[in-house]
Amino acid sequence: MLKRSDYSAPEAELQAFYQQLEAENLAPLWTQEGQGQGAEPKAKAQPFVWHWRELRPRAVQAAELVGTQQAERRVLLMKNPGLTGRSAANTLTANIQVVLPGEVARAHRHSPAALRMIIESKGGYTVVNGDRIPMLPGDLVLTPNWTWHDHANDSDQPMMWLDGLDSPLVRMLEVDFREEYHDDRQPAGEGADPSVARYGSGGLVPAWEARPTQRFSPLWHYPYTQVRATLEALARENAGSPFDGVIMEYTNPSTGEPVMPTIGCYVQWLRPGEHTKAHRHTSNTNYHVIEGSGCAIVNGKRLDWEDKDTFTIPMWQTHELANTGDRPAVLFSFTDAPVMKALDLWREEAR
Amino acid sequence: MLKRSDYSAPEAELQAFYQQLEAENLAPLWTQEGQGQGAEPKAKAQPFVWHWRELRPRAVQAAELVGTQQAERRVLLMKNPGLTGRSAANTLTANIQVVLPGEVARAHRHSPAALRMIIESKGGYTVVNGDRIPMLPGDLVLTPNWTWHDHANDSDQPMMWLDGLDSPLVRMLEVDFREEYHDDRQPAGEGADPSVARYGSGGLVPAWEARPTQRFSPLWHYPYTQVRATLEALARENAGSPFDGVIMEYTNPSTGEPVMPTIGCYVQWLRPGEHTKAHRHTSNTNYHVIEGSGCAIVNGKRLDWEDKDTFTIPMWQTHELANTGDRPAVLFSFTDAPVMKALDLWREEAR
Amino acid sequence: MLKRSDYSAPEAELQAFYQQLEAENLAPLWTQEGQGQGAEPKAKAQPFVWHWRELRPRAVQAAELVGTQQAERRVLLMKNPGLTGRSAANTLTANIQVVLPGEVARAHRHSPAALRMIIESKGGYTVVNGDRIPMLPGDLVLTPNWTWHDHANDSDQPMMWLDGLDSPLVRMLEVDFREEYHDDRQPAGEGADPSVARYGSGGLVPAWEARPTQRFSPLWHYPYTQVRATLEALARENAGSPFDGVIMEYTNPSTGEPVMPTIGCYVQWLRPGEHTKAHRHTSNTNYHVIEGSGCAIVNGKRLDWEDKDTFTIPMWQTHELANTGDRPAVLFSFTDAPVMKALDLWREEAR
Amino acid sequence: MLKRSDYSAPEAELQAFYQQLEAENLAPLWTQEGQGQGAEPKAKAQPFVWHWRELRPRAVQAAELVGTQQAERRVLLMKNPGLTGRSAANTLTANIQVVLPGEVARAHRHSPAALRMIIESKGGYTVVNGDRIPMLPGDLVLTPNWTWHDHANDSDQPMMWLDGLDSPLVRMLEVDFREEYHDDRQPAGEGADPSVARYGSGGLVPAWEARPTQRFSPLWHYPYTQVRATLEALARENAGSPFDGVIMEYTNPSTGEPVMPTIGCYVQWLRPGEHTKAHRHTSNTNYHVIEGSGCAIVNGKRLDWEDKDTFTIPMWQTHELANTGDRPAVLFSFTDAPVMKALDLWREEAR
Repeated sequence: MLKRSDYSAPEAELQAFYQQLEAENLAPLWTQEGQGQGAEPKAKAQPFVWHWRELRPRAVQAAELVGTQQAERRVLLMKNPGLTGRSAANTLTANIQVVLPGEVARAHRHSPAALRMIIESKGGYTVVNGDRIPMLPGDLVLTPNWTWHDHANDSDQPMMWLDGLDSPLVRMLEVDFREEYHDDRQPAGEGADPSVARYGSGGLVPAWEARPTQRFSPLWHYPYTQVRATLEALARENAGSPFDGVIMEYTNPSTGEPVMPTIGCYVQWLRPGEHTKAHRHTSNTNYHVIEGSGCAIVNGKRLDWEDKDTFTIPMWQTHELANTGDRPAVLFSFTDAPVMKALDLWREEAR
Repeated sequence: MLKRSDYSAPEAELQAFYQQLEAENLAPLWTQEGQGQGAEPKAKAQPFVWHWRELRPRAVQAAELVGTQQAERRVLLMKNPGLTGRSAANTLTANIQVVLPGEVARAHRHSPAALRMIIESKGGYTVVNGDRIPMLPGDLVLTPNWTWHDHANDSDQPMMWLDGLDSPLVRMLEVDFREEYHDDRQPAGEGADPSVARYGSGGLVPAWEARPTQRFSPLWHYPYTQVRATLEALARENAGSPFDGVIMEYTNPSTGEPVMPTIGCYVQWLRPGEHTKAHRHTSNTNYHVIEGSGCAIVNGKRLDWEDKDTFTIPMWQTHELANTGDRPAVLFSFTDAPVMKALDLWREEAR
Repeated sequence: MLKRSDYSAPEAELQAFYQQLEAENLAPLWTQEGQGQGAEPKAKAQPFVWHWRELRPRAVQAAELVGTQQAERRVLLMKNPGLTGRSAANTLTANIQVVLPGEVARAHRHSPAALRMIIESKGGYTVVNGDRIPMLPGDLVLTPNWTWHDHANDSDQPMMWLDGLDSPLVRMLEVDFREEYHDDRQPAGEGADPSVARYGSGGLVPAWEARPTQRFSPLWHYPYTQVRATLEALARENAGSPFDGVIMEYTNPSTGEPVMPTIGCYVQWLRPGEHTKAHRHTSNTNYHVIEGSGCAIVNGKRLDWEDKDTFTIPMWQTHELANTGDRPAVLFSFTDAPVMKALDLWREEAR
Repeated sequence: MLKRSDYSAPEAELQAFYQQLEAENLAPLWTQEGQGQGAEPKAKAQPFVWHWRELRPRAVQAAELVGTQQAERRVLLMKNPGLTGRSAANTLTANIQVVLPGEVARAHRHSPAALRMIIESKGGYTVVNGDRIPMLPGDLVLTPNWTWHDHANDSDQPMMWLDGLDSPLVRMLEVDFREEYHDDRQPAGEGADPSVARYGSGGLVPAWEARPTQRFSPLWHYPYTQVRATLEALARENAGSPFDGVIMEYTNPSTGEPVMPTIGCYVQWLRPGEHTKAHRHTSNTNYHVIEGSGCAIVNGKRLDWEDKDTFTIPMWQTHELANTGDRPAVLFSFTDAPVMKALDLWREEAR
């Protein structure tokens, strides 16, 4: 009859064996079992909010202290207090970048994918693979994996935006690499916002060129004017999700897939007084408050947020969102859900 | 040694055999070989144009002669002179439908998929599965396979539009069936153009509801104001296709696929004086001139067209398009290319 | 208030109008409505069985009367008594082909896709795009759309097989075309059954070559020895489908899709005494009895079949299958279900 | 004119700023730039071989020292000398598990996916979600993400196999969780190897059940007898890849995709004397020598291997393989390539 076998050598003998294993690049599994693996996913990161009222002075200070010659990018990293690395979430960064009037952040490309959510701008732009993309407050701009990109500010006011990258994930996977462009800036083509012209109209796509074969969206700019109008109209006619209100995903218009394979982007509208139901899922989410004020309740801890704040909700933590103000609240968020789904590690649970 | 065998019975004996076969529900293949199958695809349909200056009076006349009670739909079918059936193309119809002020074309659904390209309207609408969809000139409205739909004219002017259906294909496949709604009209929901609100913004899709599992687009309305502005902007910055100018495909925003599995829809902008290069492909295309004037040269035959005309180019016929006027020309077209591609029967050739 | 309008011109006036329309390549829709489109799909084809005891003598006779020089292919077509065309089903043929010892059926390719289900053979072969494929009784051999193929019999016995083609469908779509090879026969590569070597092992696929981009299976031969053993083993342990018993689909091992986009292939095992439940669906199916005897009950009509018979069940006809013998029955079948599914015209119903 | 700005505050002032940032959960990006991100991916792991002649005695010793009651699994972990964690590769483990006659390794399930490559066995088995799967030398057995599995040895000899898991990856992503079965063992169904019966025949899949919707293969067992025969036959007729010889991928027969979304599995045949060309790619690979002897040359370092050894080649390290013996060599390998491809991080380069 088959059964578990119930015996164990004396501890001293076991220890001797373990030392021998160590010397031979081996280790016993059973001495660590139950340590790493629990009944549930467990994030080391903490729910946390970085307030714009504190971030902005630091960004201004950074601009005063260091030029873009010294800093490849003049960027402040938000560090999650629960993580040893320097990122807001386990797989995703949330950083603030500043470009002063007349400055250029020089052209390069890298294997991490990046997005920009514009916070303050009177008119700078990013050039992505030769496409000049305007940057206005609330706009989402993508610079996907291995696309050339440089930023420039030709306005008379500082530009500040939120950078979101998958670099912690890419570093875990050890595939983090980059290339400098041979010049400070790429030449920009003639179009005013070419990716929007091609792919930004509801359902229309260019038929004179083959469909993109890359894995990321050919649309690199999602202007806030359009996004906000869409949300406002939908909020009048739809209840939306019990967990997230009227929430839209920014997608690749050529496939309907997430904008990039490692980062999904969302925007949601919470009506004044709206308070969502609690749920949790195995994805990490960084939020940026485009407008409005409210709070997140994460595993019972309350995080208050208002305009331009950034906050993070780690995976598998039960959370709900509330608009506590008298204006609509609009939250942009980005998440590693596409990674979890691609790897069959996605789980979701109403609470 | 293996070879072709070279013998044949006397003709009389063969004929006796063929009669015997006939009696047993059999037939020889070799007596017909080379008849059906040639070196190239061959359409029976002819290239043909139906001019609006002739169609419109007939449509008005139809409205005077028969009510919507008598005609389930008050529709004039365009008959291709090369076809025995009553359709403009082998697999696709192109028809004119008229709804007078105060009239309703009552609710039903059917297995053929349909589209409407609005020609004249001051404000009627179609209700598709409860969504009220405005119909203005140049708008594309979809009523896909098995969706409930009724049309109504609450303006003070007649509405006329082009109906495009895959019913010839569906009839070939013998899967043509329908169902009447229990009432003349469906109750319409509250939204003003709900599918546009949900899916009509570049790249944004609702995330509070599961992605549609149906095979057709969840976006049922592509307003011409947006389409025309997109084309005009693109035409300033892009050469477009040598064969089709600045041509866009209307797609399913949830997948990037054609709007319906049996009908692909396109719109193209030809600059004044633009004359495209010749090509041919194994798909049939019906065109509608939203605006402008020009000609198509099909297998050497010239078809002149102007505003609101309809013309058809059968498969594998070499064709080029020219804008001979001094205005931009905008051509809407619909085609069975998705069918040919799905069945691996698509071929294309520059000439 | 919107409503149906209730009026109609006098009949004489209507008739005059209709004649005028006719002259202008137009037609009223309303005079024919309800004729073509019913509440349910309706096949013109009839359920029918062609018995091998009758087919075989005709095939032998054909071989005596005409050589492969005269007949591009020495093929007898089964004609469905309900159809005007010469095919067993609306979209699919079922034919018998004979190749005598020493003969070659010369190389060509065509846009219709074909399959062969071998009935009698002591060792001939088909060459498909240079791959030499053995043909033994019960084997399924594919010659997909536009693949070169020639057949040869190097045994000392006549070979006979069932040909299944999608040519009625391809002809409806007017994309039926062909090309002759420059020689009677293609040179065959060295491998003994190369597609089976590469793709015929459960789950293993070659990784030294890129995945095929074509739409059809890279596996062109499904030997009956393997198929039968699989069915027999499964039938010991599984009930299978209530409508079809232990039924397997032959698939493209590189994608899991049907073997060809226009034809799906299946094989099913019915235990002695097994009698399936009734259902119907919008696909046409031709069956070949590899072994066993039984009957199909189609819309109440009984079709008796036994070894090597061919029968057809048209779409949307309620049917059940029974093994009335004391041996297992193995039915091969091929169907246009992939077409109906691709075009969103698939419907299925238990009865 | 836009340009990089060239200024920097005094070091003392910068340091004070950095300390302030630290206190506020922020950090400058520019002080670390160039540290993490290089021009190329860089693995910390080293190429390394664990010889069976050393592993086997330790496995036997482990079996003598600890029972399966004490060890949830009696497993020795191979530790890559370049990694701080206890795994053979950055994202994948390679471990040895031992089950003695009469023993059971009790039932559980976990979010990491696992595979087993059997090294020594006279007839034990694994039960996966109720399917009893035989385990013989060279067999690949899958226990995908969240499938229940227990192992049992009902033979009279110890069983030993290689365990490969994606647990390092799953731990990085913090989604590592597990559940114990309520009993030591699952009840096994009746079938002898049911997943092979259903999905193990070339191209045949069950049609009486819906296609699996899970992301992993429904085939859980790839017996070596079949694998070896396939390789041997192919090696007679095919050159294979210049970099990998005659290499096959184990796939999901229902989709043609990798067997699991996080682990791809391959098997390759190297002829006596065969020496492959050098290449590199951004995936980590663990190899197991099913039979034969030879070497890998990795970034100029030679690793000799022979029957039953395990070795690892980290990402982006240039490597070639050689069979230095006079027998065929058969290498099983498993890799994180599906992860890299899904996340658009796959790169490959001939050297």
